[in-house]
Amino acid sequence: MQSKILSRRDLEFLLYEWLDVEALTLRARFQDHSRETFNAALDTAEQIAIDLFAPHNAKSDSNEPQFDGSKVTIIPEVKAALDAFSNAGLMAAAQDYEFGGMQLPCVMDKALSGYFTAANVATSAYIFLTTANANTLLKCATPLQVERFVRPLFAGKFFGTMCLSEPQAGSSLSDIVTRAEHDPVDGPEGERQYRLTGNKMWISAGEHEMAWNIVHLVLAKIPGADGRLIPGVKGISLFIVPKFLVNADGTLGERNDIALAGLNHKMGNRGTTNCLLNFGEGKHRPGGKAGAIGYLVGEPHKGLANMFHMMNEARIGVGLGASVLGMTGYLHALDYARNRPQGRHPAEKDPAKPQLPIIEHTDVRRMLLAQKAYAEGAMALVLYCSKLVDEQRTAEAPEQRERAGQLLDFLTPIAKSWPSQWCVEANSLAIQVHGGYGYTREYKVEQFYRDNRPNSIHEGTHGIHGLDLLGRKVSMQDGALFKAIGGEIGSTIANAKSHEAPHELQANAEALEQVWHRIGAVTRALYAVGDLNKTLANASLYLDAVGHAVIAWMWLEQALVAAQRLPQASEDDKNFYHGKLQACRYFFNWELPKVGPQLDLLASIDTTALDMQDAWF
Amino acid sequence: MQSKILSRRDLEFLLYEWLDVEALTLRARFQDHSRETFNAALDTAEQIAIDLFAPHNAKSDSNEPQFDGSKVTIIPEVKAALDAFSNAGLMAAAQDYEFGGMQLPCVMDKALSGYFTAANVATSAYIFLTTANANTLLKCATPLQVERFVRPLFAGKFFGTMCLSEPQAGSSLSDIVTRAEHDPVDGPEGERQYRLTGNKMWISAGEHEMAWNIVHLVLAKIPGADGRLIPGVKGISLFIVPKFLVNADGTLGERNDIALAGLNHKMGNRGTTNCLLNFGEGKHRPGGKAGAIGYLVGEPHKGLANMFHMMNEARIGVGLGASVLGMTGYLHALDYARNRPQGRHPAEKDPAKPQLPIIEHTDVRRMLLAQKAYAEGAMALVLYCSKLVDEQRTAEAPEQRERAGQLLDFLTPIAKSWPSQWCVEANSLAIQVHGGYGYTREYKVEQFYRDNRPNSIHEGTHGIHGLDLLGRKVSMQDGALFKAIGGEIGSTIANAKSHEAPHELQANAEALEQVWHRIGAVTRALYAVGDLNKTLANASLYLDAVGHAVIAWMWLEQALVAAQRLPQASEDDKNFYHGKLQACRYFFNWELPKVGPQLDLLASIDTTALDMQDAWF
Repeated sequence: MQSKILSRRDLEFLLYEWLDVEALTLRARFQDHSRETFNAALDTAEQIAIDLFAPHNAKSDSNEPQFDGSKVTIIPEVKAALDAFSNAGLMAAAQDYEFGGMQLPCVMDKALSGYFTAANVATSAYIFLTTANANTLLKCATPLQVERFVRPLFAGKFFGTMCLSEPQAGSSLSDIVTRAEHDPVDGPEGERQYRLTGNKMWISAGEHEMAWNIVHLVLAKIPGADGRLIPGVKGISLFIVPKFLVNADGTLGERNDIALAGLNHKMGNRGTTNCLLNFGEGKHRPGGKAGAIGYLVGEPHKGLANMFHMMNEARIGVGLGASVLGMTGYLHALDYARNRPQGRHPAEKDPAKPQLPIIEHTDVRRMLLAQKAYAEGAMALVLYCSKLVDEQRTAEAPEQRERAGQLLDFLTPIAKSWPSQWCVEANSLAIQVHGGYGYTREYKVEQFYRDNRPNSIHEGTHGIHGLDLLGRKVSMQDGALFKAIGGEIGSTIANAKSHEAPHELQANAEALEQVWHRIGAVTRALYAVGDLNKTLANASLYLDAVGHAVIAWMWLEQALVAAQRLPQASEDDKNFYHGKLQACRYFFNWELPKVGPQLDLLASIDTTALDMQDAWF
Repeated sequence: MQSKILSRRDLEFLLYEWLDVEALTLRARFQDHSRETFNAALDTAEQIAIDLFAPHNAKSDSNEPQFDGSKVTIIPEVKAALDAFSNAGLMAAAQDYEFGGMQLPCVMDKALSGYFTAANVATSAYIFLTTANANTLLKCATPLQVERFVRPLFAGKFFGTMCLSEPQAGSSLSDIVTRAEHDPVDGPEGERQYRLTGNKMWISAGEHEMAWNIVHLVLAKIPGADGRLIPGVKGISLFIVPKFLVNADGTLGERNDIALAGLNHKMGNRGTTNCLLNFGEGKHRPGGKAGAIGYLVGEPHKGLANMFHMMNEARIGVGLGASVLGMTGYLHALDYARNRPQGRHPAEKDPAKPQLPIIEHTDVRRMLLAQKAYAEGAMALVLYCSKLVDEQRTAEAPEQRERAGQLLDFLTPIAKSWPSQWCVEANSLAIQVHGGYGYTREYKVEQFYRDNRPNSIHEGTHGIHGLDLLGRKVSMQDGALFKAIGGEIGSTIANAKSHEAPHELQANAEALEQVWHRIGAVTRALYAVGDLNKTLANASLYLDAVGHAVIAWMWLEQALVAAQRLPQASEDDKNFYHGKLQACRYFFNWELPKVGPQLDLLASIDTTALDMQDAWF
């Protein structure tokens, strides 16, 4: 029985047949692993996702966390699912053995994550915030902090959060005003303490009763000698601020001065508490006085850099979440289309003939094919990027690690944004395939659509990633990132041209070559303008165009593997590979050409939006 | 104070400055009207919408109708709003004086409707189903039926529904199986009665306690002499099936045999009851036996044609609903963008400078401009079509009426589908402008997004309208409709070229001319294929391409008016006209070019979706 959570066949294609994840087991860190241990981990993830995550997805959507003024109540299925996840050792799946981890490659860890997010994005959020938090701390915390906070996080005893935004500073972190002042009193093992005051907004998993403790990672500013906060990002430092203080022996101490000011109520992701937290307002008085006790992580004033250590991975995580929601929506729509009889072919004139399953209608097939192309294309990109994380960390040669880092830096805004854009579109098409049923909460696809929508907002909005790509990544290291990605795309194109690739893939390779060549020219033209506001005016469109080209590349890659394996494949596999080739055809015929007018517009240095005046609206 | 429901300035521009609705008052039917009476009606609508429709929009969304097994409970604000609407005489606004109407032109009636839908789509649904029902009856009911049912509908005492879909027959009406058998007993005034049995799905406003009675308009099949139902649409007849029978003196009689089997729970439109109704299952026994009593409307077997008398108007109504939701979302996003400070320009390096309102960011302006272009472009099209309804009904010359009918038939699938597609996109952009706040239910835009999504599903899915446009409208009357619309677009182009139009509009006219010319060529190529399944394979894409061209035409029309009025305009009006010109520029620079690759694909008779096999998914 095939689950509708994710396509295992597709995952194995991407991991083993395309990315050759097995080859990673030759490296020291992954030497205990094999395709068998990877598959066992996938089995475990799939089973827990089916048994414990998917069943309460709708229930948790319609029974949001409730705050009675003192405690937050969450339906018990959430904790049961998270406990099963932790007990299977999955919280530290990618970590060192010494943290109870399995030392799985990042790419496998992301594949596992996919199951949980696809099955239940709201419950999974508690996991991914905890691992993101622990991973960040591992990079820059002291050994004492690692012992006291990171170990219980990986054990699933403590949960974590990331506290960045403030009501007056959402995307603009340089404008945060949470203060962190030295506390004359030291912590339990003599470490320096700070007292934090300020309000943090949009804190997912910010308050609940499902873990012994909640470890907040908080961005705040240490005032200068004049008592004033330093403007800009340079003033930002990073702090651990636990819900309960932790004694030297690891037991929990006093309640820290963090108060839940209210829950946000979202369109989707409704099972995840999303909080406005007040730090240091005096609701609790640890050590006898107001002020949330926090511990500096890493150097002062380096908070943003420290927090952003894990940013590539967190952003790939957003892209992954968007992709798997697109995928599960697609699988649900496919199942519905195969089983719902309705109507006849246009050329059929006899109304007494039985109705056809709607998958027989070309327009329904188009909508399914588009979903497949979006979701599997997006999935390919996020797994490709995840493997780059492994390359960056574990590749033998330093230049290989460096190149992986360049590719990853370039692709991250795309891996975050493209799935967030197009897999919501996939979810909308999944609704459309279901007709009126798809719009009701009796079916699952409308929730996927709602759950997927924030992905182009959080972890940097779509517009901000456009600025990141065009304003930073493209010009970084004198254009080395752009050159690196061009090199990779170039080898795929060369493969498609020189191999015994089918004629159609050769034509696709030529189309991609032209587009990529043009992207280079447009990029130079944009930089030649000499006015940064003009260069970046249409950065979102640039992100869209480059994103489509990158996904076309992902499809050409997949099609090359499919074409190569097709002749010797089993009957089932033949169908699977034909599907890959047809989705590639769809992407090159229907999607890549959309880039043409986008590049025309960019090349013309269009100022329509830039010239628009407030008063004219 | 400008309300955020609709832009009155824009409405007046479209109605008076562009469509010259005042000229209609020269016709006999509208001779009592003037710009003053039109404005008074707009004032009334706006005020009731602000006072009684908008305030409970969110409440009604989070407090859905409840069914306790016998009655449906709806928050009282809904009835209060509907009563105020009826009491203002708006239920019959476009009707003859003899039905208590105001004899307003259709285009004014639609403009008024826009306020209520924008303010509260769920509450408005009760109105529009009632008027659609009554309008249909007026076309084909007997005088007795008009007295007994239509008058109370226009008076707001009875409410109406349209009962078409069945669980096994959504889009495919030819497959309905609701039976209507002759009843040996006659009705209260001797009219022939039928007994109906069957299940009707997706019945909006199907059950509630807000009106004295509910008049269901039901499609059903009268069995042939052999007792079997006739396959296909030819077997379908139309019936009035009231919730309560109506005595000869107009008082209510027995409860009819209609039972609410359950409510559907939707993603949006949550305040409108949406019902599965069982007819004739024996829950009630009017006249002592099971079977829902119904009265034939018009001739037997002509049910679909009778029901579809009002289809153009109903479909324009869907397009209007989508447009005004796009518009109100835009106005909310605009207000937010003007008042939310966040971030600085890319070229600004001093973080101590105050944050700017986000409308200062080019990408935010692009998102606002896109919303404006989508919503005002869509609004222009639905009002243009509504005016065509008036032309079709009241124009002096028969050839003028005929031409209006041709234009209307051609444009209806576009007026229904384009706003439903692009104004959801506008709502998504409204969320994006709000950032994380837009994704929460504490702000209004996420509801607009949810409320707008069904518009590309109901009243014929997007795909079905593609088939209607390419498969029927284009070839109808030997291409006369296509020729008529080409003629209209051609005169706009000629105007833009010959007038003292700004140079840019002349260039736009040329771009539109080329696109329209190409649409003609592509249409001929599609029809030359000689295989209907291939001709129609990509009909949705054809609808998208023609839709974009039509909206470009609407923008060119608006821009011509704006350009002409700009020199003599007041300061405020200058800003308004500049806004129109900039939105036109946006549409021609950013949107119309999207049509290029779509036409390439259509011209290539692409079979990617057609060739896709079920087994390959």
